[in-house]
Amino acid sequence: MRRFVIGSARNLIESSRQKYQFERSILSSPYRFLSSSPAADSPSSSSSSSSTMAHPVSLNTINPKVIECEYAVRGEIVTLAQKLQEEMQTKPDAHPFEEILYCNIGNPQSLGQQPITFFREVLALCDHPAILDKSETQGLFSADSIERAWQILDQIPGRATGAYSHSQGIKGLRDTIAAGIEARDGFPADPNDIFLTDGASPAVHMMMQLLIRSEKDGILCPIPQYPLYSASIALHGGTLVPYYLDEATGWGLEVSELKKQLETSRSKGITVRALVVINPGNPTGQVLAEENQKAIVEFCKQEGLVLLADEVYQENVYVPEKKFHSFKKVSRSMGYGEKDIALVSFQSVSKGYYGECGKRGGYMEVTGFGADVREQIYKVASVNLCSNISGQILASLVMGPPKVGDESYESYSAERDGILSSLARRAKTLEDAFNKLEGVTCNKAEGAMYLFPRIDLPEKAIKAAEAAKKAPDAYYCQRLLAATGIVFVPGSGFGQVPGTWHFRCTILPQEEKIPAIVTRLTDFHKSFMDEFRG
Amino acid sequence: MRRFVIGSARNLIESSRQKYQFERSILSSPYRFLSSSPAADSPSSSSSSSSTMAHPVSLNTINPKVIECEYAVRGEIVTLAQKLQEEMQTKPDAHPFEEILYCNIGNPQSLGQQPITFFREVLALCDHPAILDKSETQGLFSADSIERAWQILDQIPGRATGAYSHSQGIKGLRDTIAAGIEARDGFPADPNDIFLTDGASPAVHMMMQLLIRSEKDGILCPIPQYPLYSASIALHGGTLVPYYLDEATGWGLEVSELKKQLETSRSKGITVRALVVINPGNPTGQVLAEENQKAIVEFCKQEGLVLLADEVYQENVYVPEKKFHSFKKVSRSMGYGEKDIALVSFQSVSKGYYGECGKRGGYMEVTGFGADVREQIYKVASVNLCSNISGQILASLVMGPPKVGDESYESYSAERDGILSSLARRAKTLEDAFNKLEGVTCNKAEGAMYLFPRIDLPEKAIKAAEAAKKAPDAYYCQRLLAATGIVFVPGSGFGQVPGTWHFRCTILPQEEKIPAIVTRLTDFHKSFMDEFRG
Repeated sequence: MRRFVIGSARNLIESSRQKYQFERSILSSPYRFLSSSPAADSPSSSSSSSSTMAHPVSLNTINPKVIECEYAVRGEIVTLAQKLQEEMQTKPDAHPFEEILYCNIGNPQSLGQQPITFFREVLALCDHPAILDKSETQGLFSADSIERAWQILDQIPGRATGAYSHSQGIKGLRDTIAAGIEARDGFPADPNDIFLTDGASPAVHMMMQLLIRSEKDGILCPIPQYPLYSASIALHGGTLVPYYLDEATGWGLEVSELKKQLETSRSKGITVRALVVINPGNPTGQVLAEENQKAIVEFCKQEGLVLLADEVYQENVYVPEKKFHSFKKVSRSMGYGEKDIALVSFQSVSKGYYGECGKRGGYMEVTGFGADVREQIYKVASVNLCSNISGQILASLVMGPPKVGDESYESYSAERDGILSSLARRAKTLEDAFNKLEGVTCNKAEGAMYLFPRIDLPEKAIKAAEAAKKAPDAYYCQRLLAATGIVFVPGSGFGQVPGTWHFRCTILPQEEKIPAIVTRLTDFHKSFMDEFRG
Repeated sequence: MRRFVIGSARNLIESSRQKYQFERSILSSPYRFLSSSPAADSPSSSSSSSSTMAHPVSLNTINPKVIECEYAVRGEIVTLAQKLQEEMQTKPDAHPFEEILYCNIGNPQSLGQQPITFFREVLALCDHPAILDKSETQGLFSADSIERAWQILDQIPGRATGAYSHSQGIKGLRDTIAAGIEARDGFPADPNDIFLTDGASPAVHMMMQLLIRSEKDGILCPIPQYPLYSASIALHGGTLVPYYLDEATGWGLEVSELKKQLETSRSKGITVRALVVINPGNPTGQVLAEENQKAIVEFCKQEGLVLLADEVYQENVYVPEKKFHSFKKVSRSMGYGEKDIALVSFQSVSKGYYGECGKRGGYMEVTGFGADVREQIYKVASVNLCSNISGQILASLVMGPPKVGDESYESYSAERDGILSSLARRAKTLEDAFNKLEGVTCNKAEGAMYLFPRIDLPEKAIKAAEAAKKAPDAYYCQRLLAATGIVFVPGSGFGQVPGTWHFRCTILPQEEKIPAIVTRLTDFHKSFMDEFRG
């Protein structure tokens, strides 16, 4: 059933035919899936057009790794949605729906989620410290936000929130984050292991840049995966070595599958450098069991792989039977320390209950590397000087929120619990709705912000997609968008077992909109199936 | 006198011996210049040490382009300064000075420069919009900052300052920036040409990533240069093609020199893709004359080179006889449009009179590329989702500050003029002081934030440096630091004509500290020269 294919970004970009081979193999579509970008469509032909003749730079002369890279969550379907939205601004009746419902990306505040008040109070005060000792400020801000702002300012040399910081981030903020990690894990954390970054994405890029020397270096990534990984491996010229999550066991991560893929890739001359694990999973929403994590740690230790742990959804767990355990905690609980396993944990202010995507805050905790390699990571960080200070402050707040007894504690925890319990209800409602659709099965939404239902499409629909030069899941998503305004991302953007079709749907639309989404989706699906039923 | 050498990052990293050849050629030092990092010191030997044996990742197995990259402004001398500072925290009398004076980096607020009040008011209000319609807010914030915050919020879909934006940045903010560029240049600017970024550095990386395919692709860079360029070319595996600025004519940029270097590199099989021009200059502080800029534009047009214009110091011009002209304005005034020249202009909120380094805001204006290549730039931007929203807002404020008649206009312009005139005085004082030192000559500080004086070192000092395994300018800077606490960056970090020695000094220490700096520097220099005079 499964095919195990290794896609070398660099080798497979030589011609557009090979490019589609890559897509067909890694992203598991027997169909070329189109992009609205002329670039991705016909890289070799466009240079002969008159518009590019005039420019010194053409698609034929840019870095082929850039052309190779794809990023589905802001890809073709989103471009189309934006176009429809623009049309509706001039002609409100142009389409059979009142608004576009963006379920394509984990961007909670764009869909109406409100920021946590305490966090925003502190950020505002740090942005304009001149008001901190004004009497009006007492009336506008909570006492503990004022106190926290003073604490943070005192941690910043010269109280200069407008200065470049240490390239790993302000030391006092890293102290707070390390203390938060310790409280979470029950094991020590070193502020010197923290690298604050503009969201988690630049941190992932930094590690790929460090580890990838050529297309002979491979990174084990889950399939389905978050496309940041395939994009960043492509940009850095490495090889994505896929391992398949087992949909039948709730997107289970089996170490036997990791071993098989490692051996297959080694037999092809690939040096596997690292294993990416996304927990809770994106786009799949599963939460790993601790025993499973122990086996993964053991595997990385035995095979000498760096464990790249994407833990940005650590606060997003919706089922009582599952709990988030950091890979650092799991490895330390096994007795493994600095010398035993190289582990990088990524965290972000964009997810959790905070959802502060636009602030671009995040960090990576880097353990198990020698001082010499750490120096190199520091050097790469220093070339971009530092991450933005507001994002740094927010990362410290997220890892050190108000405590029992603080003035803001009650309102803070009410806001937090309100968001998380609503997300859990939305996840369950959507999961149930998907499972009621003909030919659709959806695993339990244990965590993260997504559902990744599987859809068995009628043969006629697959033929219609082929005629429209679309992958079948992309065809379904485009028809859904055109009929309802709902934006899902086709599974082919994340990778899937060949011959299976999925889509990713976020659980983020406001709760009161969920019933209408379910109705519109259900109606569309029924008519789609009626149209194509054999 | 001059040597014209092309350094291929990838080829020259094979061994440490070759690495030092690269440094000797491009960075023009006949001496190996040391780094405190064990990595840069002995990449081949460290893997045999016991500490790295335990780790799966060693210097031998990471990306050699990372090892190759150097970033002097946060390099060895700064690490040493930080060490001294730490020592002084426990032992205040450990060194013969009371504080470390960081003149190594353009980081104004770290040295006490205050942020522009209006900018910070708007940022704070956008961070915590809940206070916008509270009565206390009227007492704390200016009326036009409240109005501007409302305007900006209305430009953000859903007023969600915590949401990911369009990957080029929020459209309304790009409109403001485009209007600011039009007002500056007198030629139209298109908001769709603007890509907002976390400071200028990621924008430079993005263009290098786009243009560099292999070590056969060259980028023409000034020598001396800002080390972001050498670092980013090294990280992307390209070749830095140096052109020398003429110190004798005030760091003049001669097109004949560009042509010579272009031909030399072509004869070696290098495809030159782009020309980097930094105007006003870093580290050299010169401001290009308009006629000179026209010749540069003509050269790029004729040779089909992308013009990468680092214009982050566009507000930092200190002499009445010089004026900043953007390369976009110059090329449009020559009648050259979209089809004639590919031009990228970089701007940042970190410089100018605002100096908001920690906010990580900036943009690039991308013109003269075909739609297909633009799609690729957009795709790369989208992989990191978007730049931070506070930085985006600040970039719009910097390009659209208060106007005559606005409530804040007078205080805003007083703050701005106060900073700029003080910087001009500091530049002149330091320039005069350098020119009074034996063996030191310093070009006029026309703009930017730096002076790059030349120092003729006695033969005995060069010998002493050699014995200490330092480049002579690094040796001078280390001795200066140890004696006075003043941090300069040796010229070898920027590149210089072989056999000449320089250092870079920012003009940023607070004005009242400048006399003491001059005295300490003068005393040190006299005793240094006395020690080594032949």
